Amino acid sequence: MSSNSFGKLLTVTTFGESHGPAIGCVIDGCPPGLAIAADDFRNDLDRRATGKSRYTSQRHEADDVEILSGVFEGLTTGTPIALLIRNTDARSKDYNDLVDTFRPGHADYTYLQKYGIRDHRGGGRSSARETTMRVAAAVIAKKWLAEKFAVRVRGHLAQIGALVPRAFDWDAVEANPFFWPDAAMVSELEQYITALRKDGDSVGARVTVVADNVPPGWGEPIYGKLDGDLASALMSINAVKGVEIGAGFAAVAQRGSEHRDEMTPQGFLSNNAGGILGGISSGQPVVASIALKPTSSILIPGRSVNLEGDPVEVVTKGRHDPCVGIRATPIAEAMVALVLMDHALRHRAQCADVGYITPRIPGEVSGKR
Amino acid sequence: MSSNSFGKLLTVTTFGESHGPAIGCVIDGCPPGLAIAADDFRNDLDRRATGKSRYTSQRHEADDVEILSGVFEGLTTGTPIALLIRNTDARSKDYNDLVDTFRPGHADYTYLQKYGIRDHRGGGRSSARETTMRVAAAVIAKKWLAEKFAVRVRGHLAQIGALVPRAFDWDAVEANPFFWPDAAMVSELEQYITALRKDGDSVGARVTVVADNVPPGWGEPIYGKLDGDLASALMSINAVKGVEIGAGFAAVAQRGSEHRDEMTPQGFLSNNAGGILGGISSGQPVVASIALKPTSSILIPGRSVNLEGDPVEVVTKGRHDPCVGIRATPIAEAMVALVLMDHALRHRAQCADVGYITPRIPGEVSGKR
Amino acid sequence: MSSNSFGKLLTVTTFGESHGPAIGCVIDGCPPGLAIAADDFRNDLDRRATGKSRYTSQRHEADDVEILSGVFEGLTTGTPIALLIRNTDARSKDYNDLVDTFRPGHADYTYLQKYGIRDHRGGGRSSARETTMRVAAAVIAKKWLAEKFAVRVRGHLAQIGALVPRAFDWDAVEANPFFWPDAAMVSELEQYITALRKDGDSVGARVTVVADNVPPGWGEPIYGKLDGDLASALMSINAVKGVEIGAGFAAVAQRGSEHRDEMTPQGFLSNNAGGILGGISSGQPVVASIALKPTSSILIPGRSVNLEGDPVEVVTKGRHDPCVGIRATPIAEAMVALVLMDHALRHRAQCADVGYITPRIPGEVSGKR
Amino acid sequence: MSSNSFGKLLTVTTFGESHGPAIGCVIDGCPPGLAIAADDFRNDLDRRATGKSRYTSQRHEADDVEILSGVFEGLTTGTPIALLIRNTDARSKDYNDLVDTFRPGHADYTYLQKYGIRDHRGGGRSSARETTMRVAAAVIAKKWLAEKFAVRVRGHLAQIGALVPRAFDWDAVEANPFFWPDAAMVSELEQYITALRKDGDSVGARVTVVADNVPPGWGEPIYGKLDGDLASALMSINAVKGVEIGAGFAAVAQRGSEHRDEMTPQGFLSNNAGGILGGISSGQPVVASIALKPTSSILIPGRSVNLEGDPVEVVTKGRHDPCVGIRATPIAEAMVALVLMDHALRHRAQCADVGYITPRIPGEVSGKR
Repeated sequence: MSSNSFGKLLTVTTFGESHGPAIGCVIDGCPPGLAIAADDFRNDLDRRATGKSRYTSQRHEADDVEILSGVFEGLTTGTPIALLIRNTDARSKDYNDLVDTFRPGHADYTYLQKYGIRDHRGGGRSSARETTMRVAAAVIAKKWLAEKFAVRVRGHLAQIGALVPRAFDWDAVEANPFFWPDAAMVSELEQYITALRKDGDSVGARVTVVADNVPPGWGEPIYGKLDGDLASALMSINAVKGVEIGAGFAAVAQRGSEHRDEMTPQGFLSNNAGGILGGISSGQPVVASIALKPTSSILIPGRSVNLEGDPVEVVTKGRHDPCVGIRATPIAEAMVALVLMDHALRHRAQCADVGYITPRIPGEVSGKR
Repeated sequence: MSSNSFGKLLTVTTFGESHGPAIGCVIDGCPPGLAIAADDFRNDLDRRATGKSRYTSQRHEADDVEILSGVFEGLTTGTPIALLIRNTDARSKDYNDLVDTFRPGHADYTYLQKYGIRDHRGGGRSSARETTMRVAAAVIAKKWLAEKFAVRVRGHLAQIGALVPRAFDWDAVEANPFFWPDAAMVSELEQYITALRKDGDSVGARVTVVADNVPPGWGEPIYGKLDGDLASALMSINAVKGVEIGAGFAAVAQRGSEHRDEMTPQGFLSNNAGGILGGISSGQPVVASIALKPTSSILIPGRSVNLEGDPVEVVTKGRHDPCVGIRATPIAEAMVALVLMDHALRHRAQCADVGYITPRIPGEVSGKR
Repeated sequence: MSSNSFGKLLTVTTFGESHGPAIGCVIDGCPPGLAIAADDFRNDLDRRATGKSRYTSQRHEADDVEILSGVFEGLTTGTPIALLIRNTDARSKDYNDLVDTFRPGHADYTYLQKYGIRDHRGGGRSSARETTMRVAAAVIAKKWLAEKFAVRVRGHLAQIGALVPRAFDWDAVEANPFFWPDAAMVSELEQYITALRKDGDSVGARVTVVADNVPPGWGEPIYGKLDGDLASALMSINAVKGVEIGAGFAAVAQRGSEHRDEMTPQGFLSNNAGGILGGISSGQPVVASIALKPTSSILIPGRSVNLEGDPVEVVTKGRHDPCVGIRATPIAEAMVALVLMDHALRHRAQCADVGYITPRIPGEVSGKR
Repeated sequence: MSSNSFGKLLTVTTFGESHGPAIGCVIDGCPPGLAIAADDFRNDLDRRATGKSRYTSQRHEADDVEILSGVFEGLTTGTPIALLIRNTDARSKDYNDLVDTFRPGHADYTYLQKYGIRDHRGGGRSSARETTMRVAAAVIAKKWLAEKFAVRVRGHLAQIGALVPRAFDWDAVEANPFFWPDAAMVSELEQYITALRKDGDSVGARVTVVADNVPPGWGEPIYGKLDGDLASALMSINAVKGVEIGAGFAAVAQRGSEHRDEMTPQGFLSNNAGGILGGISSGQPVVASIALKPTSSILIPGRSVNLEGDPVEVVTKGRHDPCVGIRATPIAEAMVALVLMDHALRHRAQCADVGYITPRIPGEVSGKR
């Protein structure tokens, strides 16, 4: 399978570079009969878009989606759905200084070492511009999951630098440009980001995605585990350096008597597992978190080398985010939704005849996420 | 592809249950001409084996590997290598109490929900017994990587409960039953595990794997990234709840000016990236860490439900580890080695003609891991 | 995916050499709850077996199947099913003459050119011994297809040398050692094969497989077409040089007005399509035929070269079939059954919600195959 | 993997319908550094194009290729190459009569049965329009194979109806609109096609593709055999009902003493194998043939049913070929080239270290194809 594709039954293939003529994707395996229109993509693309707030990158792309195939009279036909977005606001000359310099923390050096050639403009293929198509593709997955299983996939920023939410409210998340679940802290975040930008520096972030109403039974042991597939899907997002399911690294210091999620007829008593046991969904909310590194594209000069191998000082101009983690929220949701839909299809392929198994323990526990 | 297989060009398929007649694997894609004998598997299987120390599970398996195919006159032929290990010490009756009870934190419930049927004996397919074959398969990968690229893949325990090493010495790691890099702390660990066992409880752990001498250029963007494939490979190990590359979740609180690994003609000045940029190896050591949850098989009674959905109290007898993270060290090494070899083959498939690219920055930085 | 695996959702991986310790396979993706016992494999393995009649090879293998995994208390569990057959009647010394000689028409030369090493004993991995595992794996597919859809997969010899059946009766097929559908010709065939053996020569054959009751809708355009997957599955059988669906090469000389299968409410008026249109089953019987070359292992001396590149004369002793096509019948059935089951699972993954579509045209046409 | 993708390491994904806004493809895995420009696609697209001669369909598409990604400053970068062609001459209203009627011999009925929905215009996804992208993708494969291995992939019409060439000359093939290797017969073919069109009927054809200079060693046993992959690739072409390698179905009536290709230090004495033994190339020319059915889109009325299941009479107007086999020649070449390049990459992934093996027997035999 192409390494620019992912998903076994719902397969998404993306293409395009940051400063090429267009980016696009091909989504194959979608069940027929799902209503899809160009407008459906608008909301999530806006959520991901750079330039929508002054706290993220200043690149302004229209991100108008053209549906090239796979939809007939408003419904998916079961054949591949191709989506295309033209690049309109690429400023390649911003990158002229970088033709023969490597940016520390970027893929410049590794792409050149691998391919012997690279498109230096805006990161080329390694740019986060590619994630636009993940978000677009996931619009279809989210819609199908919602219609068919009432599955809802939502994400929020869970940490930025040392700041963590002091309260949690899903309603707050979409009401501020940081996907931050604590409305009372928004002005604090604004000041934080403004100070970062003034410093010419950047910071890391943690994003958490929660999928509610995932039925038990999704996921394929051993190497197609739901958590294994979430891990690669999330780690493939630009700047991600870590993935956790449920308690994640906190489990290192937990005791078994604390970590195990005890079961009662009324529901599980906790969700340290993040909704996945043995690679298979348990019916509890699926919870995944990611660590995003601070972008390396900063104004503070850094040491690097040029194509001749000589030492140089690098300052990254371009238009970049002081915290790439902010707009990673819809991207992380996208990857979770795509993995879930793929596994929904995989599950019914093998186990369509299994039916409803009792006892079924309620997934939600009062007062818990 | 089978969900019990992994790897695109070096493909490993495992089979077998904890208490079935045998476990085994098929390794396909190995280059021809590599010397392999049954004895080669001994060392790593012993390192992984339960029952080799009183700090891990008391199941005693001989783990004698039979090579069924793919090796002729001591050399790999390029055809699939099948390995078989008979189960000899399975005590299925230990699990009779569990026929109609779900163990919290185990895959019992999810397997039943998925398949409508389950082999309850010792976890069946979800048992860590399966990881024996990963370790066996990786013996071949480690050997090939070492002979061809001098790549060395080593792991160590990096945390257990709240304990972290106060010193680091690779030589210490293999000299104690905990893969612990600080010799001075070994008696402390012994007491810790003994106390846990006395409590009938368990604890989580953190394991770190380091691969030295990985050349730059391995890894395939976008969805076949080296870190993405490591993430799924490591997350697929039993009890793993988190995966980090390089700085991992510590990157959340880092500044860009701190995180980016500056480059000089003499080498990188740090390795927060864990040897991977844009999904492609940089020539620095590849560093991955995992979080392992505390095993849920403990003597402390827990609440659960039975097949009728009624509440029950569960005490797991069987033979289990107070800390599954200890013997996860060679398993994590195995997954890293298998992913690396797969990517070595993938890289030369596409980029064999690229050759040596200058400038090449030395991967190792004096005094750093 | 391993090149020793096939099938997307029902995935079969085989291993083993003709003269190694064992052959085996791993079948993954089988739905849970199917009853499978070791005895189920007996009938088809006997049908395929060499040495069961004096008209085929004289190698006598017990072909006792050991189920290593994936079946618990007589039912499939949804986890990988591993099957093992020990080689017991390999006479490797028969092949000592061939250590440094290439047999014309065999894979000796190409395996050496590819791998730089080869197991010369009995063809090693290229031996038709491998097809035993295809037949074994397909026992499961045939059983599932029959129970779930009443699909019946049957094959027969359709030509041997210049001989073609003058009458057709499915009941005759299993009543003679040639899978020949014309009982009146059996003694003629016996004489033909006896004469061939006396000549020390061999002959080609044509085998046809028919699958009845395949529902409409199986097959995935464009590169996962049902006929495309049948083509590779059948071409992968040893000695196969051609594959036809329906009218096959006869279509070259047909007119459109003759070839198209006209449709009426009572049924299709012909089946030149072989039950597949646009890569998707139509509800008519799926009909595929293969051409098998005459085995090159014959007593008549032939020109070849040795490892030094010098000309030599080769006479193949060993134990071989004068017509490998005879026992290819159950192997061809096996490949058809495995492809069908894979596509049944693939179809319901994507289209489980489509349901029964009207109008549905009856597949069978009175008096037609 | 998407069923609209093919190839393991060189992976081509196509999308688009006959009468949608555009068709396109994504080619992944191409080595970096290959020079590619939009002009490179012109020749083969013209060879495939309908409307270029009065003997094929009258649809006139410009088929201008836009390179959307993967090429930077004229060279492939190793990232996915997306190609786009806008549909400009689709006359959807020609198909209005077919909204509720099934065309015999077409995919109308099976698409509806599978998906419960279909794009009836011009065959939708099942149209041969899709093959345009195969030809475009293969331009890259042909170029790489030629530059790297001097492999040349050429096809010709080998039979149309009952007509077969009486002489063979590669130079003739490109000098007439029929890809016919016997210049003396061209006027005979013209009259034949003209008569067919006058009859409102169509006829089948046979196309043969020959790939010269394929090195020995390409192809992966057992289920990734070179001939197995050629079989599925060729069978996936619209209207193909049969695939042969080398002698193909003629092998059924051959004796072993005749079929086996004897070997001498000067070369093989024949090429019944079609250049493939045991699924691996032998160094002889790779020879594959396909049978194409007569198109079912003809003016002669035929019996069918409508969406209500009532009997109707169908006459296909639209713009169609009296012999689709003619323009299948470059399509068949395309599939062979793509499979060969995929296997070239696969071979060097596993066997790059094997090197040149002696003895190597010359592939070409004087006076033979």
